[in-house]
Amino acid sequence: MSLGVIFISEVVGTAMLTLLGCGVVANTALAKSKGNGTGFLFVNWGWGLAVFAGVLVSYQSGGHLNPAVTLGLASTGIEEFVPGIAVGPASIATYLAAEMTGAFIGAVLCWVAYKQHFDKEPDPGSKLGVFATGPAIRSYGWNFLTEVIGTFVLVFVVIAAGNFTNHSGVGPANLGWLGALGVGLLVVVIGTGLGGPTGYAINPARDLGPRLAHAVLPIKGKGSSDWAYSWVPIAGPIVGGVLAGVLSGVLLPV
Amino acid sequence: MSLGVIFISEVVGTAMLTLLGCGVVANTALAKSKGNGTGFLFVNWGWGLAVFAGVLVSYQSGGHLNPAVTLGLASTGIEEFVPGIAVGPASIATYLAAEMTGAFIGAVLCWVAYKQHFDKEPDPGSKLGVFATGPAIRSYGWNFLTEVIGTFVLVFVVIAAGNFTNHSGVGPANLGWLGALGVGLLVVVIGTGLGGPTGYAINPARDLGPRLAHAVLPIKGKGSSDWAYSWVPIAGPIVGGVLAGVLSGVLLPV
Amino acid sequence: MSLGVIFISEVVGTAMLTLLGCGVVANTALAKSKGNGTGFLFVNWGWGLAVFAGVLVSYQSGGHLNPAVTLGLASTGIEEFVPGIAVGPASIATYLAAEMTGAFIGAVLCWVAYKQHFDKEPDPGSKLGVFATGPAIRSYGWNFLTEVIGTFVLVFVVIAAGNFTNHSGVGPANLGWLGALGVGLLVVVIGTGLGGPTGYAINPARDLGPRLAHAVLPIKGKGSSDWAYSWVPIAGPIVGGVLAGVLSGVLLPV
Amino acid sequence: MSLGVIFISEVVGTAMLTLLGCGVVANTALAKSKGNGTGFLFVNWGWGLAVFAGVLVSYQSGGHLNPAVTLGLASTGIEEFVPGIAVGPASIATYLAAEMTGAFIGAVLCWVAYKQHFDKEPDPGSKLGVFATGPAIRSYGWNFLTEVIGTFVLVFVVIAAGNFTNHSGVGPANLGWLGALGVGLLVVVIGTGLGGPTGYAINPARDLGPRLAHAVLPIKGKGSSDWAYSWVPIAGPIVGGVLAGVLSGVLLPV
Repeated sequence: MSLGVIFISEVVGTAMLTLLGCGVVANTALAKSKGNGTGFLFVNWGWGLAVFAGVLVSYQSGGHLNPAVTLGLASTGIEEFVPGIAVGPASIATYLAAEMTGAFIGAVLCWVAYKQHFDKEPDPGSKLGVFATGPAIRSYGWNFLTEVIGTFVLVFVVIAAGNFTNHSGVGPANLGWLGALGVGLLVVVIGTGLGGPTGYAINPARDLGPRLAHAVLPIKGKGSSDWAYSWVPIAGPIVGGVLAGVLSGVLLPV
Repeated sequence: MSLGVIFISEVVGTAMLTLLGCGVVANTALAKSKGNGTGFLFVNWGWGLAVFAGVLVSYQSGGHLNPAVTLGLASTGIEEFVPGIAVGPASIATYLAAEMTGAFIGAVLCWVAYKQHFDKEPDPGSKLGVFATGPAIRSYGWNFLTEVIGTFVLVFVVIAAGNFTNHSGVGPANLGWLGALGVGLLVVVIGTGLGGPTGYAINPARDLGPRLAHAVLPIKGKGSSDWAYSWVPIAGPIVGGVLAGVLSGVLLPV
Repeated sequence: MSLGVIFISEVVGTAMLTLLGCGVVANTALAKSKGNGTGFLFVNWGWGLAVFAGVLVSYQSGGHLNPAVTLGLASTGIEEFVPGIAVGPASIATYLAAEMTGAFIGAVLCWVAYKQHFDKEPDPGSKLGVFATGPAIRSYGWNFLTEVIGTFVLVFVVIAAGNFTNHSGVGPANLGWLGALGVGLLVVVIGTGLGGPTGYAINPARDLGPRLAHAVLPIKGKGSSDWAYSWVPIAGPIVGGVLAGVLSGVLLPV
Repeated sequence: MSLGVIFISEVVGTAMLTLLGCGVVANTALAKSKGNGTGFLFVNWGWGLAVFAGVLVSYQSGGHLNPAVTLGLASTGIEEFVPGIAVGPASIATYLAAEMTGAFIGAVLCWVAYKQHFDKEPDPGSKLGVFATGPAIRSYGWNFLTEVIGTFVLVFVVIAAGNFTNHSGVGPANLGWLGALGVGLLVVVIGTGLGGPTGYAINPARDLGPRLAHAVLPIKGKGSSDWAYSWVPIAGPIVGGVLAGVLSGVLLPV
């Protein structure tokens, strides 16, 4: 395994994630779309299964798709991300760059897929909402805390599921692609349980990559990209992910 | 395995359960939340997958997360909860204390995640509903019976699924973390099928822990914690769980 | 394995099925229930996962829970239902009697769980709808055909899934309790795809057992049990199930 | 394995697919149906689990059910579709003919199941919508692109999941019928994420077969079969599927 394979794998997986994930918001939020107004459970399933699809195509690199996962796993003290890829500045930088690149590409493809609906949608806020998260009640400190908690859950449960498989001695060594389904269902429940206040970015690349796409694409009638808020879905998930990595050693005894 | 590991494992799992489970109610019930008004199926998936996440992180102790499960399993006559942990007053007390502690902690975290929405919500009843269950039609005897039936289903099917794996001779010995998904889906269907009258506590810790949190937290504009009803979601689940444990020997011949 | 074990196993499984399945209709249809008005997808998940739970507790007998499944499997020409239980008049009669008994018991328990809501519900039609299916547009011939098609799908796919496992040579011999999930998801899609015209009985016991319960229980303000329609969800499923059993030999070459 | 078995297997699977898939649209779109107006998430689950059921009954031939899958797999350079069936003009023609035949048959059965509801439905557009897809905003070029992207996702992830199993070295060789569930969930998320603009045909047979059925069946009060649009859900999926097959060699290094 080389860093080049890691890069391609994470680009492809994260592009799949934001294509399908931004897509479900476009489907419910944009004018004349067939899923218009379908609601929050629809969005939760759409994002959760987008993670499922993204992890499936990113099997070579372990399907992080998320800097908070990469940094969270690194902070647990593991030595390799996948066999042959040591945890270190070079591999971490590769993961992060790929995740950002993929997230941007997926958002562009989503815009192409829904081009006519972006053109017909009058509300600039709905257009931004397809790309980037925003708070239901703007309050940076509390929004930050919500993102910390949501991402803690994501990374902590992912680490626990790995321990479950490897250390509890009760299961098979591996269940193949079903692990991708497990992560997808976990993202569904983070959305249902903790998505209300901030729209659960829980992933800096998922938010920043599409926000950049929103800023640079020639989207008809678009408004602000709301850069004032953009640090929250970056900092919150990183803090939550690292906290999960560090605390997993204490709270998940093996 | 020590009782200390059991304690930590059940605290973490039950906190995960009530954080995500109370969270889905907050999401649909509190003012301005993005999931506001999404409805009952949303709540069913949210609680069901909260159990999935909770069991995943509680693999060391078997993921009870629920005094009715602990007492129900104990009443089947098994000798150990997990290898090395004998069924007895000390282990049962450890499970119960951990479940109560975790349920309280998860509810506090949910309040933090939704702090701004609690502040903006005018209805005290909606606030209490995030923490504790309440009857659709208040009638303690019938409400009690509904909780008995719902918890009977939970504990009985959990025991049956274990028998399925171990005694029917048709399956692999274990399917690892997928067992957590099975329990989660079971809680979804208890919610869809039996959640209408009382909101399916089916777990004394899930109801009492968050109700205590409601009572002690400085929630803006909160009302009564409805202690008059609080015995129903404690007594009903315990009776239902123990009944399931006792009857499983008769109704699930191996 | 004895016929007595088969009987208990099918009673328990079918009671679980109608308790949770009739329950989801009660939840969406009866006055003041927390799930009131949640809609058809809610009902589909509720019945599908009710099958999941029912099959889980009925592992000793293979979890038929349905005379159409019993008769459909018998008509494939297999020699044993489960190891030691030969296909024949005695075993078929045992399955059918247990399925009817269980379906009746589950419906009674559902009535107990929702007692207050039955009392408060003004519409007799909604009360009957909890127990038995009825046509959206009454037209016995077409309703019969719809039930034939729906049950054909159920029994045909169940047989195919068994062939998939045993004859395609690409999978493990068995995936344990996950088979119960597969059948549950199949019932979800029969509901979404074919449930519109008749409410997808696809199971004579599921319809007749609860209809009998409706007729004999002292339900406040109940109306007719609509016996004129009752032959459709008996005859349609039997024809569909037997047709699936017979045609599986032709259409599912191994 | 013979081409005759392949033919039967794909006819049966694709008929199952369109029976259940067209059925969910009939259920939500046609007058007086019990699922009338249930919405887009309902349709997504209905089509996704229809694929699950279709693949289950089509295990002998690998469950393509879709010319875009057949052509996409062929363009990856594999030598056999299933053991003993070489990729080539004869096998490809067999798959395509079977997929078209099955898709037509399933649509006819759907019409039978919902006959009374077709008769009562006043809107010809709703009737056509049961059979064939149509654009939310008619714009052939953009509609084509959306179908290319959606089908690319389908075929690309299917290929990736196969690689995941075979080349990543982390999972079991095969998970039997669970693969059918994986494909079904993938179709759910393509619907939630990319179904808004065109209704996600992502399968030429799924669209053309039922459109032909619409054209020839004596459907009461039917309107145009909209042949002007019919090339989009044929050409788009073929381009997307072949693109996925070709690019998988580059983007999914093993």
